[in-house]
Amino acid sequence: MKVEFINPFLASLINVLSTMAQTELTPGKPKVKKDEVARGDVSGLIGMVGPQTKGSFSISFDESLALTIMERMLGERPEGINEEVTDMVGEITNMVTGGAKNLLGEKGYDFEMATPIVVSGTGHTITHKCEGAKLMMPFTSDDGNAHIEVSFDTL
Amino acid sequence: MKVEFINPFLASLINVLSTMAQTELTPGKPKVKKDEVARGDVSGLIGMVGPQTKGSFSISFDESLALTIMERMLGERPEGINEEVTDMVGEITNMVTGGAKNLLGEKGYDFEMATPIVVSGTGHTITHKCEGAKLMMPFTSDDGNAHIEVSFDTL
Repeated sequence: MKVEFINPFLASLINVLSTMAQTELTPGKPKVKKDEVARGDVSGLIGMVGPQTKGSFSISFDESLALTIMERMLGERPEGINEEVTDMVGEITNMVTGGAKNLLGEKGYDFEMATPIVVSGTGHTITHKCEGAKLMMPFTSDDGNAHIEVSFDTL
Repeated sequence: MKVEFINPFLASLINVLSTMAQTELTPGKPKVKKDEVARGDVSGLIGMVGPQTKGSFSISFDESLALTIMERMLGERPEGINEEVTDMVGEITNMVTGGAKNLLGEKGYDFEMATPIVVSGTGHTITHKCEGAKLMMPFTSDDGNAHIEVSFDTL
């Protein structure tokens, strides 16, 4: 998998968060993930299946950032990660992957999306079990960090 | 989604664990998941996409049970959840879903599997964000508990 395949997810995430929650994330350097493990407090995960490939996408948020996004969307800050927050993370996962699907489809890489799954738990880690390379991109913001990971079997 | 759609996953799990790791799990009652949240220490998740439906499957293990399965497969008990354990959980996720895919395919419900994702983190929770019903089935064993969850959009 080429590093450029993470760019549609990056562009889609920046777009979704600035539109939905007036939140600007600063992307760090994309990296091929080897031993490094990133931690998050709430994550959205989704499977992707296409004729040429299959894979998975995840987005992980620090709790502080997830709560700030909720606050900006709803006007009220939840006390912790509740069902509204996991719904929002599932929705962001769907929207980011849907945006990337459109961009990758224009390049001839088609896939269908499964339904998202949201994980909550302080400092959990996520490992994409895929034959292909795994790409990770960290993001920073004033309100906490996030990272995305993308893995495709055959790109 | 009908309760019977969890049965292929149940049968496949029991088969995989008894074959691979001589481990017998005792199934509890399947339930439609509403507010209840089950916790696990290491979980495998996978997306499913078919012409009639899409969905997701997860299997969560207590750490003690995951380590016992590893011990029975490899003859040595890891000290904690390491990459070998997450590889094994990813592999179990693939095998259980593959077995269920065959059984459901015989009934005319076809789907393709995405690649699995493994989550580690003490006491994390998983929420399948799906329009359809979510079915959960708990399992007990002498070495710890496990549970599976299945969610399909349109079955």
